[in-house]
Amino acid sequence: MPTPAGRPVDPSSLLPAEARALFRSGLVTPTSGWSSGYAQANLIIVPKAQAFDVLLFAQRNPKPCPVLGVLDAGETSGALLAGGDIRTDVPKYVVYQDGRKVDEPTDITDHWRDDLVTFIVGCSFTFESALQANGIHVAHIDQGVNVPMYQTSVRCEPAGEMAGPLVVSMRPIPASQVADAVRVTSRYPAVHGAPVHVGNPAELGIADLGRPDFGDPVRIPEGHVPVFWACGVTPQAAVMESRPALAIAHAPGHMLITDARDSAYQVP
Amino acid sequence: MPTPAGRPVDPSSLLPAEARALFRSGLVTPTSGWSSGYAQANLIIVPKAQAFDVLLFAQRNPKPCPVLGVLDAGETSGALLAGGDIRTDVPKYVVYQDGRKVDEPTDITDHWRDDLVTFIVGCSFTFESALQANGIHVAHIDQGVNVPMYQTSVRCEPAGEMAGPLVVSMRPIPASQVADAVRVTSRYPAVHGAPVHVGNPAELGIADLGRPDFGDPVRIPEGHVPVFWACGVTPQAAVMESRPALAIAHAPGHMLITDARDSAYQVP
Repeated sequence: MPTPAGRPVDPSSLLPAEARALFRSGLVTPTSGWSSGYAQANLIIVPKAQAFDVLLFAQRNPKPCPVLGVLDAGETSGALLAGGDIRTDVPKYVVYQDGRKVDEPTDITDHWRDDLVTFIVGCSFTFESALQANGIHVAHIDQGVNVPMYQTSVRCEPAGEMAGPLVVSMRPIPASQVADAVRVTSRYPAVHGAPVHVGNPAELGIADLGRPDFGDPVRIPEGHVPVFWACGVTPQAAVMESRPALAIAHAPGHMLITDARDSAYQVP
Repeated sequence: MPTPAGRPVDPSSLLPAEARALFRSGLVTPTSGWSSGYAQANLIIVPKAQAFDVLLFAQRNPKPCPVLGVLDAGETSGALLAGGDIRTDVPKYVVYQDGRKVDEPTDITDHWRDDLVTFIVGCSFTFESALQANGIHVAHIDQGVNVPMYQTSVRCEPAGEMAGPLVVSMRPIPASQVADAVRVTSRYPAVHGAPVHVGNPAELGIADLGRPDFGDPVRIPEGHVPVFWACGVTPQAAVMESRPALAIAHAPGHMLITDARDSAYQVP
């Protein structure tokens, strides 16, 4: 991709602030592979009147909704995006009114209100690097597509007005590496942690792995087991179901690139 | 201690529901050593109007304020205390009005309001069992006193009206076992996790280890290093400083005994 100066650069080598500046100046792209080593994040923005319900929903459903940071009402920057602006620094947003998608802007300045509270929620991109570093292939990266995501028949623990289904992402893992994948991802509880389900998709109410609700289907190689992790799209599904007057999220795959290092979320 | 029927029982062998029933019927005692294997918890109860600030304070300060559960406004029971009643099932409470302690009742039914939200916050008793199981002596248990707790000069990340100092607990650990103590407790992020400080108390603004702000002093054996963990009294200190009209907490050492097993909070 070109920089503003026209020279090609490797997006994986950009510092988060440099990446955010490019998005601020109008670049629209999925962020997979950008700013290697830095945590990317889901976004959910709601009016202060809904903020307690959203935060409580996250507390009660920490696997799909691991909160990395919360900006105060009206605040547009913070430690996770130093010098940045949450209204412009994500490549693409989704705006919901009464639970319906009404806009997919690249800048939400026109939608901004002083009572909006921004939740920055962990993303599985962080543990995918750790999987690869441990010799476990990530199929959707190898196949050059988005991770497949599915609404399940599992209900989240509700909180006030917020209620909805658990959304999961799926990665096919060789049977001999399932235990390693569990071990590696369980060290990242702040970015969805260990899988929620290994094997039979029907038990999650998923009829056809080839037809994900979000993202792209992936081919499941012979001898691989479908492994399911809680997904940061879950709060968006709850917003769609609980229908607050206004909610803003990132567009799937178009994440906030934060200044936090992936390694900061590893335990123990 | 006697049961209602008069026969002596070992408090460590009581199920949580049995222990809560004894407290409900009027028994007042510190809970250290009770219901072995089950998680004990700190309590902070505030009106709904303050609940977002308290939950956000906890989110921003997860080491001192690891939230295990939140009851809805007016709710008096929940999965962590099945069949129980949060107004009666803790041996002793502290009631704050405008940040000042006004009562230390054994039952808060008279103070209850339908807008009160209960936060159940993890407690280091959980990792103390793990320390002992790993061959690390816990001095205050060996010496038969309460753990010493200190207000530090470290400020918590504020949230709305909630602001205050980090409160820490201190355990002297043999120099050769400090690394083990870090390793063991870091596996319990939901109950304060790894230490926040090892060694020199002056750097935390603690002038005299012999004069704790809460709990009892402990003797520090030769060759032991003072090791400091974030403490669940921290939200009470913030309540004292931020002065909501009403707040209710457990009395130090008189915890809520939950139905959750200690092992549920171990990672990975």
